[in-house]
Amino acid sequence: MPQTKILLDESDIPTHWYNVVADMPNKPAPPLGPDGKPVGPEALAPIFPMALIEQEVSAERWIPIPEPVREAYRLYRPTPMFRAHRLEQMLGTPAHIYYKYEGVSPAGSHKVNTSIPQAYYNAQAGIHRLATETGAGQWGCSLALAGQMFGIDVRVFMVKVSYDQKPFRRSMMHTWGAEVFASPSPHTVTGRKALEVDPNSPGSLGMAISEAVEEAASRPDTNYALGSVLNHVCHHQTIIGLEAKKQFEKVGEYPDVVIACCGGGSNFAGAAFPFLADKAAGDPRAKNTRLLAVEPTSCPTLTRGHYAYDFGDSVGLTPMMLMYTLGHDFMPPSIHAGGLRYHGDSPLVSQLYHEKLIEAVAVPQLATFEAGVAFSRAEGIIPAPESCHAIRACIDEALKCKESGEPKVLFFNLSGHGHFDMASYDKYFSGQLEDFEYPAAAIDEALHHLPKVG
Amino acid sequence: MPQTKILLDESDIPTHWYNVVADMPNKPAPPLGPDGKPVGPEALAPIFPMALIEQEVSAERWIPIPEPVREAYRLYRPTPMFRAHRLEQMLGTPAHIYYKYEGVSPAGSHKVNTSIPQAYYNAQAGIHRLATETGAGQWGCSLALAGQMFGIDVRVFMVKVSYDQKPFRRSMMHTWGAEVFASPSPHTVTGRKALEVDPNSPGSLGMAISEAVEEAASRPDTNYALGSVLNHVCHHQTIIGLEAKKQFEKVGEYPDVVIACCGGGSNFAGAAFPFLADKAAGDPRAKNTRLLAVEPTSCPTLTRGHYAYDFGDSVGLTPMMLMYTLGHDFMPPSIHAGGLRYHGDSPLVSQLYHEKLIEAVAVPQLATFEAGVAFSRAEGIIPAPESCHAIRACIDEALKCKESGEPKVLFFNLSGHGHFDMASYDKYFSGQLEDFEYPAAAIDEALHHLPKVG
Repeated sequence: MPQTKILLDESDIPTHWYNVVADMPNKPAPPLGPDGKPVGPEALAPIFPMALIEQEVSAERWIPIPEPVREAYRLYRPTPMFRAHRLEQMLGTPAHIYYKYEGVSPAGSHKVNTSIPQAYYNAQAGIHRLATETGAGQWGCSLALAGQMFGIDVRVFMVKVSYDQKPFRRSMMHTWGAEVFASPSPHTVTGRKALEVDPNSPGSLGMAISEAVEEAASRPDTNYALGSVLNHVCHHQTIIGLEAKKQFEKVGEYPDVVIACCGGGSNFAGAAFPFLADKAAGDPRAKNTRLLAVEPTSCPTLTRGHYAYDFGDSVGLTPMMLMYTLGHDFMPPSIHAGGLRYHGDSPLVSQLYHEKLIEAVAVPQLATFEAGVAFSRAEGIIPAPESCHAIRACIDEALKCKESGEPKVLFFNLSGHGHFDMASYDKYFSGQLEDFEYPAAAIDEALHHLPKVG
Repeated sequence: MPQTKILLDESDIPTHWYNVVADMPNKPAPPLGPDGKPVGPEALAPIFPMALIEQEVSAERWIPIPEPVREAYRLYRPTPMFRAHRLEQMLGTPAHIYYKYEGVSPAGSHKVNTSIPQAYYNAQAGIHRLATETGAGQWGCSLALAGQMFGIDVRVFMVKVSYDQKPFRRSMMHTWGAEVFASPSPHTVTGRKALEVDPNSPGSLGMAISEAVEEAASRPDTNYALGSVLNHVCHHQTIIGLEAKKQFEKVGEYPDVVIACCGGGSNFAGAAFPFLADKAAGDPRAKNTRLLAVEPTSCPTLTRGHYAYDFGDSVGLTPMMLMYTLGHDFMPPSIHAGGLRYHGDSPLVSQLYHEKLIEAVAVPQLATFEAGVAFSRAEGIIPAPESCHAIRACIDEALKCKESGEPKVLFFNLSGHGHFDMASYDKYFSGQLEDFEYPAAAIDEALHHLPKVG
């Protein structure tokens, strides 16, 4: 049997992140301020260190990875790529299925790829504290760990419903020394207002972002860190795809389809953008390679949202960004892939989708758990509900190959493990989960809530 | 900075397990039947396949690993070895600290190393179902996963208190398709009797073993599988130490101290026995190497137990084995390292300890969590409470090196992650945990409960 794991040495950890902006046919639309005019880097300075702001607006193809970041990456990178022999056999497909496994990071997901550089650059800038939001807890854990590595205190606003339902993600953050508050919280003006309106508010990612941004903006010793959406976050995640390309070189294959789940977009960006680089460079192997973002039917940002300027948070503290959005006041249905419930999508991913350089598909919840259970029985690893979306789409592609007889090379990013999501699996097994199709009327309605531009 | 992870290729997965019996100065004392006479292999045939019974009584130094087992191992083996640079810096020690990380197995611990071959040999023998016990759930998960790989149904008797307190380990077993019952259960005579006496019995590992053995002995289609203690289990685990030796070759070092936590003994056996092989072979590097088993002060089997014949289960269904024991009716205090609460210890480990070829130390609970938190902040990985015992002992050795200035090479096995033990960390942080010194009177008392031999 051919190799199961394709491993790289620590010396293979990339020395640069890839910036897709250099290869985009049209330059990214700028973020806009409240006056409808483009915001410059200086507007971001109260909450981000200059090194990250420079990356945010950079058009350079390659961004050097600082040596202390590469050293911290060595705790878990390069991550393994697996050939899914057992899954292929189970499906009876001629496809070759490969997956990269980001769940080997101590926090259990790809999020650590950006929390480490974010903590590093903030430490270099003399910042002692970072405020952030977290939904299901994967980002909060990742920043807690990275903060610990670089001597930065971390304060996490955790969406209330997750704070209550995922106590062990909280414990993990505590273990790494972070403070965790349920959001909406009494610690910010935004939180207090929300609690006045509804003391039992379950919170939302947009609300938690508002609180963290407020905290960072109002304290000189505190900066803000975001786990997805922004350009610099997408750049950092490209380490996934860059390693994957080296691993494909080792086995002498190249993917026909690259698949990743897509919430804020950085996971998809990280897996897919480096292959877009090959397409842009005219690499003949990449010519027909499809890049497929997978989202839930309950939060169908790319596949059914509006391509429009909108806020990144729920109350409008952030600049407006041109992106696919369901409206910044979108209240996500309570699905189990907490990481895929964001109202918007990375402006870079959105623009590439709008320009038809990447594809997107929405899948219903039950089908994703079905795929996740099949995967875990074949390959051992129990995937995070977010990752189950990529697995679902990959299995669907593999079944098409079975019908057509094509031995396509399929690649997906297994963004994290499901060790803290077993309650969701329990609900799936006991028939308590359902599918949720986001209603067309709500999508139409969202149009009227978008901020006015210009 | 020198390498952080020392990796091996799949081709480096050992082709043979090591059997320490070949190198023991005195042959192992035989298990005894109810009549006080040695039991032969045939007595074990109703519950174990012949291939495992042969391994149980084998004196061959090397036991070949079947190819399908090596293939299944490739899902997670070889496991990485890490140089703990950050922990060394945190401690300010001149020691070189290395750890092997078995938590990368899909079930999260070293137990999969033996569940895979046990499921394989049973499948080869035409067995369709395995019954087993589990305490905290690590072994149950490991057998559920392995059963799924080889088409064997798995029925797990899970100690009641863990069944209630660790619902997510249960969910994991369900995800891999196993049935899980709280023990004592109404499914066996033993369980029903225990429930009559106390309907709210919290259960014990010995009780769950009794139920699983009864189930296997009374059904021709069902065999039994044990996750530790027995010789063949210790053999299978030597893959840990055998790989570690290859990894030490790669960095040109050799351990002065080999450290592993010790409950039933197979984890310690797996990490340490291959280094004992070097000692037996007169390897000069191994001459002064110390092999250190670490147990909790609340269940101090090796350090304070009786070296005597005793049953492996709580009601006396198993043969009697010569081992360190606290008495088969020992009721373990409710500490959080569920995997270290067994009343006895592997006969092989026990005999080697009795003959002073290995060492043992007992450590109190709070100090193990303190060590685990320090480790997780330095190295990222949050360790299982069992593994925290090894970390505690390793840190103590590293601090001795700091005092003496000796740059010793310390090696410990990080047997599993703590993702399903965060409630224990919460209790530690909130001051709800305490130390528990097993009372001397209880140890004296146990002497009177040991079975009469001959």
